[in-house]
Amino acid sequence: MSTDKVVITQAVNQQIQYILKELNFTQLAVLVDENTLVNCYPLIKASLPNHCLIQIKSGEEFKTIETCNHIWGRLTAEAFDRKSLLLNLGGGVIGDMGGFAARTFKRGIKFINIPTTLLAQVDASIGGKLGVDFKGLKNHIGLFSDPDQVIVDPVFLQSLPPAELASGFAEVIKHHLIADANGWEMLKKQSLPDLNWLETIRHSVAIKSRVVASDPQEAGYRKTLNFGHTLGHAVESFKMINDDSVLHGEAVALGMIAESYVSYKKGLLSSEELKSIENYIDSIFTRVNIMPEEIDEIFNLVIQDKKNKNNRVMAVLLEGIGSAKWDIKLTPSEIKSSLRYYSN
Amino acid sequence: MSTDKVVITQAVNQQIQYILKELNFTQLAVLVDENTLVNCYPLIKASLPNHCLIQIKSGEEFKTIETCNHIWGRLTAEAFDRKSLLLNLGGGVIGDMGGFAARTFKRGIKFINIPTTLLAQVDASIGGKLGVDFKGLKNHIGLFSDPDQVIVDPVFLQSLPPAELASGFAEVIKHHLIADANGWEMLKKQSLPDLNWLETIRHSVAIKSRVVASDPQEAGYRKTLNFGHTLGHAVESFKMINDDSVLHGEAVALGMIAESYVSYKKGLLSSEELKSIENYIDSIFTRVNIMPEEIDEIFNLVIQDKKNKNNRVMAVLLEGIGSAKWDIKLTPSEIKSSLRYYSN
Repeated sequence: MSTDKVVITQAVNQQIQYILKELNFTQLAVLVDENTLVNCYPLIKASLPNHCLIQIKSGEEFKTIETCNHIWGRLTAEAFDRKSLLLNLGGGVIGDMGGFAARTFKRGIKFINIPTTLLAQVDASIGGKLGVDFKGLKNHIGLFSDPDQVIVDPVFLQSLPPAELASGFAEVIKHHLIADANGWEMLKKQSLPDLNWLETIRHSVAIKSRVVASDPQEAGYRKTLNFGHTLGHAVESFKMINDDSVLHGEAVALGMIAESYVSYKKGLLSSEELKSIENYIDSIFTRVNIMPEEIDEIFNLVIQDKKNKNNRVMAVLLEGIGSAKWDIKLTPSEIKSSLRYYSN
Repeated sequence: MSTDKVVITQAVNQQIQYILKELNFTQLAVLVDENTLVNCYPLIKASLPNHCLIQIKSGEEFKTIETCNHIWGRLTAEAFDRKSLLLNLGGGVIGDMGGFAARTFKRGIKFINIPTTLLAQVDASIGGKLGVDFKGLKNHIGLFSDPDQVIVDPVFLQSLPPAELASGFAEVIKHHLIADANGWEMLKKQSLPDLNWLETIRHSVAIKSRVVASDPQEAGYRKTLNFGHTLGHAVESFKMINDDSVLHGEAVALGMIAESYVSYKKGLLSSEELKSIENYIDSIFTRVNIMPEEIDEIFNLVIQDKKNKNNRVMAVLLEGIGSAKWDIKLTPSEIKSSLRYYSN
């Protein structure tokens, strides 16, 4: 998406007022969950004109067509027309699902994202991937469409639980690993409390926006953003199916270690680079618990990934830190051995 | 959509083979209902490579998100990837819903429409309106996206019940009324059995394609295609909610008479033109039965129409036969009196 559609600011209320004035709309709805209702909505409420508040339950398990039915039902009950506007106030689930609900309501109404988690601020709100999960498969139903506006303010991070902050930070690490070797040298000396969030978010949004703009439909280069996600998504689905849970960032942290290991085994990454990645990720994330007997089941979910073609597993590997190659075929044994390496 | 995406042919099998060769895809699914399975699928089966057959129940009442769940579920179970292809073999419901399911499966796979009803051939398959009904509201959830290919062959009309043929013919009449005064003079002398279907379809597809191409997102001129539909849709929804049924074309025929009446009352149409429209429509369609006490309820559904803004009812009126004006505000009394006029 064009970067003028993303504002990174420390004055969210001023931006909301400005943007609502710019956008031509008839009715406004604000989508929240029980967390953003309490922690985020009060921070912006005074800047909003008359609106309908739509509340959904937080969590990936409610990122479903059934929840869309609820959103569509509310918009219908309030007689929202095609010129109405939906403001999504929340994390990735709210943004992805609210965006999908908006773009399919009466064949599409406008929507704004105000991402309130680090993950949504540096990742989910940029790039136009909208949708919901289906039968335990992440983002299985959806479409590509950019929000009409994204407003990012680090103020919302203050109410975020530390684990959620770390979860979003996995994508920050990823953006360095695939696209910024110099940045990585600086990043790996810093721990979370040292960071300047405004600068950190700007850096990640700039990388993601640049990658997406050069390849919006994910024909090639954009796939590098999936680093850590081929194996990470499968583990996330696996945990969801088994009524366990893992944060997205924890799964991606796992995926980045496992896929870095494959990169190392293929001679694309040195053992020092692999160690440096592992050490930094381990300084922030506790490893996800994976039992040896679970590896086959996770492998089956890797095969189901929507990014694969003809049941061949294609992944992103690092070619040195700061550079990534996509559409690399992984063999079943590479996949399984990387999961064993991670869990040993 | 560009007209090269629509082929009107008497050699559907040859076209299927040609197009499947042109399109790059991994897996193929064919969507049918119990009618097209028996009447249409055998006509093309020999031209299809290995495929997965997905059967749904026919009828507007199954044009729902629940049926999409079934389609998505089958594609998922068969491990369809993002390069797979869906071929929709059926009427408007199959094309609109199959297209929506395709464009939202893994954020979008390719789809081809082979429309098998006259309505779908001259209307639904052209113009990229995809979606499903929601809480009795027609096409309430959906999106705009053109099929990758449409193949139209009149051969499929041979198995169509006469009422279905007439239903589609309402759109043929509409295309003449809004855009072709000379054509209307010829048309009104012909009855259904006299028609050359290949020519009739070409004429309607040309008008619809031209209108849609000049205004794909329905900002203005495209709205003329809604002639007869503001009141027609409401009556269709009304009948569906009350477990009664009316064919789309019967409802549009009603809408065209009622909206022509409003055009006449506003001085846009002469009484002779109104009579000529009524007489021709009545020669083909039996009038829909509307009781005086039902008019208020139908009026409430008119207000719900997704094309309205701020609860004002905007309609298309004829300005003489062969020309139409859009975004004309209708008052509640104009709407109700036109329905009374029709049902008297």
